[in-house]
Amino acid sequence: MGVDAELRQRLRRLSADERDDEFPGGEEGATGWDGAETLLARVAWSRLAEPGDGIAGAMLAALGPRVALQLLIDDVSARGMRERVRAAGEDIAARVLAEARDRWLPRLDRAATLDDIDRALAGGLSVVIPEGAGWPSQLNDLGAHAPIALWLRGDPAILQAHSLAVVGARAASGYGTHVAAEIVDGVCRAGAPIVSGAAYGIDAVAHRTALAASAPTVAVLAGGADRAYPAAHDSLIGRIAREGTVCAEMVPGSAPTKWRFRQRNRIIAALSGATLVVEAGVRSGTLNTAGHAAELGRMLGAVPGPVTSAASAGCHRLIREYGASLVTNAEEACELIGLDDRLAVLADGERVEPDGARTPPLHERVLDALPLRGGRDAAEVARRSGLSIAETRGALAELDVLGRVEQREPSAAGEAVWALRR
Amino acid sequence: MGVDAELRQRLRRLSADERDDEFPGGEEGATGWDGAETLLARVAWSRLAEPGDGIAGAMLAALGPRVALQLLIDDVSARGMRERVRAAGEDIAARVLAEARDRWLPRLDRAATLDDIDRALAGGLSVVIPEGAGWPSQLNDLGAHAPIALWLRGDPAILQAHSLAVVGARAASGYGTHVAAEIVDGVCRAGAPIVSGAAYGIDAVAHRTALAASAPTVAVLAGGADRAYPAAHDSLIGRIAREGTVCAEMVPGSAPTKWRFRQRNRIIAALSGATLVVEAGVRSGTLNTAGHAAELGRMLGAVPGPVTSAASAGCHRLIREYGASLVTNAEEACELIGLDDRLAVLADGERVEPDGARTPPLHERVLDALPLRGGRDAAEVARRSGLSIAETRGALAELDVLGRVEQREPSAAGEAVWALRR
Repeated sequence: MGVDAELRQRLRRLSADERDDEFPGGEEGATGWDGAETLLARVAWSRLAEPGDGIAGAMLAALGPRVALQLLIDDVSARGMRERVRAAGEDIAARVLAEARDRWLPRLDRAATLDDIDRALAGGLSVVIPEGAGWPSQLNDLGAHAPIALWLRGDPAILQAHSLAVVGARAASGYGTHVAAEIVDGVCRAGAPIVSGAAYGIDAVAHRTALAASAPTVAVLAGGADRAYPAAHDSLIGRIAREGTVCAEMVPGSAPTKWRFRQRNRIIAALSGATLVVEAGVRSGTLNTAGHAAELGRMLGAVPGPVTSAASAGCHRLIREYGASLVTNAEEACELIGLDDRLAVLADGERVEPDGARTPPLHERVLDALPLRGGRDAAEVARRSGLSIAETRGALAELDVLGRVEQREPSAAGEAVWALRR
Repeated sequence: MGVDAELRQRLRRLSADERDDEFPGGEEGATGWDGAETLLARVAWSRLAEPGDGIAGAMLAALGPRVALQLLIDDVSARGMRERVRAAGEDIAARVLAEARDRWLPRLDRAATLDDIDRALAGGLSVVIPEGAGWPSQLNDLGAHAPIALWLRGDPAILQAHSLAVVGARAASGYGTHVAAEIVDGVCRAGAPIVSGAAYGIDAVAHRTALAASAPTVAVLAGGADRAYPAAHDSLIGRIAREGTVCAEMVPGSAPTKWRFRQRNRIIAALSGATLVVEAGVRSGTLNTAGHAAELGRMLGAVPGPVTSAASAGCHRLIREYGASLVTNAEEACELIGLDDRLAVLADGERVEPDGARTPPLHERVLDALPLRGGRDAAEVARRSGLSIAETRGALAELDVLGRVEQREPSAAGEAVWALRR
């Protein structure tokens, strides 16, 4: 796919790594270096393959996204694709490649990919790819099943922090809700972001408790990152996007499907250092996330409950049969990700900034654009920093969560005024 | 200690093995064979040593109870005792033996031992010792800390069955009480006797549920087996004695002390195939029983509960830190003692007779004394079987629990009439 100056500009805005003013990565063996083409290729691939398509993963790993995409654009036969893959030292059966090619080709559509980019930019989304510095490298543990790219709203830096996934039953009991909130609150104090799936029940409690603690939280969605699901969580997901991160491997606008939900769970498991299941029925989808965590060698914890409660039956099974650690409080939850010592020394109310939440370049530029005394409105900060107004607003909201900036009385024009917090 | 014909007769009545009409065991190296003297020596020793006295255990193992006792009667010095022990291939430091001798000698009192025997016979107690066939050999896993003898009321055969210990908090919650009853009921259906400590809370629920299911249950007491503790459980313990077994290593009339409670717990753990803790606080004495079970290599199970309940905190700790299996129902409890398959195939209401509850000789004699048609009162059964009226009543109550006999309309004299059940 050719990349003209205008498209290059849009890709630059789309990339979460653009703050380095250079596109990330490159491809061994490719002539010259063009991060924009790599990003475009991955963006295109993320429309071609369904989540967890291991053949796409293997192709991309062997040939790189640009070359792999070009084979499709050039309508190379499955046999031809196989030769290229073999030349790169990999082997995929011709029949398997033929099937995969039949899955991918009908979706190959440059216009649709350009629409995906426009839709993402309009929704304030950015993209991280494995070739970029913003990529959460723990996702590579998924091997050929790693996401091709991650579309996100909010701060990509949170994705790299050592986090805890907290998941559980949609039909959570009062007990489960209470315990999830207690544990998440403590884990947030210890400085670990909370990853979950923005579903009803335990997921929502986990996100809301993190938000209430002004702590970073990540929602991994099964559909597009710009599309709130469930719809009733529209405002919750919007708040997570402003104060944390919402991400998805599907292109913007994608509908969540049952398959995508199951595949989404592997991202939750891979993104976080450990997974804690608070409540889960015996046939709960939550056990799927737990299974992914165990497969990845991530620590797995489960909160016990009354044996008379169906909502705890899945947790008990995880402890009995899958070696999950029994977790009764925040300290034991922190132990799963190696932060228990930190929580133990904190006094009541004290908290620690998240690991890995280094000031990202975007934040630095916004902070630099704020005066040492007094404040400025977002439009003025955008002008001074050279960022878009949407980026600026996003960065200000994030810095607010992180306690670095604060809102003052609105200006005469009714605009919010931001100032450095000291 | 000499044994005259009258004392021999009393010992014969005291021994739970007397139905063989021969005393059990003998001692290697002793001139001649006299089970009565062995029984008398163990009865005397069970007054000398506090529970779990490993030095007494080592002495008795090396020299046998008669020779070991004779050394004390003969006032042999610690040095002399050490020589005898060494000659038998064991070594105990002289200082240790001197201290032990100082503990034992003040309690050496033939009259008191004869009183113990009288008191036991008056209370319907019998005694099993390691040399006898009625001894539950699993207690030998305690090594030098095995009880010297076991005083008991009720059916000694139950002690040899493959049983489950169910223990827990005195201050049990409604939840714990409910779950204990559910699990015990299922385990009883699978045919395993329930061992517990007759305390308030979970212990009492375990015994009562077994009694309600007409299933065998064993209460291990910290004081004398003739002394109900807690006193409020007088009628419960009496019922266990009639329908199951009450046992203790202390001589009759002994008071339970804190030390004896802790030592009693080792017997509960050793007697049963596995120990299940239903509820326990973090500093509960129940954890002591669990510790003994783990030390003995017995399976250990614990029932989870709400993490918000202090009564479940000890259970959660056992699962987290001591490798206890998480148990949520009767089938999983049966799994601890390898009976899960059996429970799984039982239809509702169906049950299995306990393992190892072979018809003991006493039962056979009582069954033989009952007519094939119609019934007889206990006095008539006693006359025909040659047993005492107390033994006969005990055996009839046991056979009733086991479903072998049944009570008919009382005789004209108001006496209960017993008949074979078919």
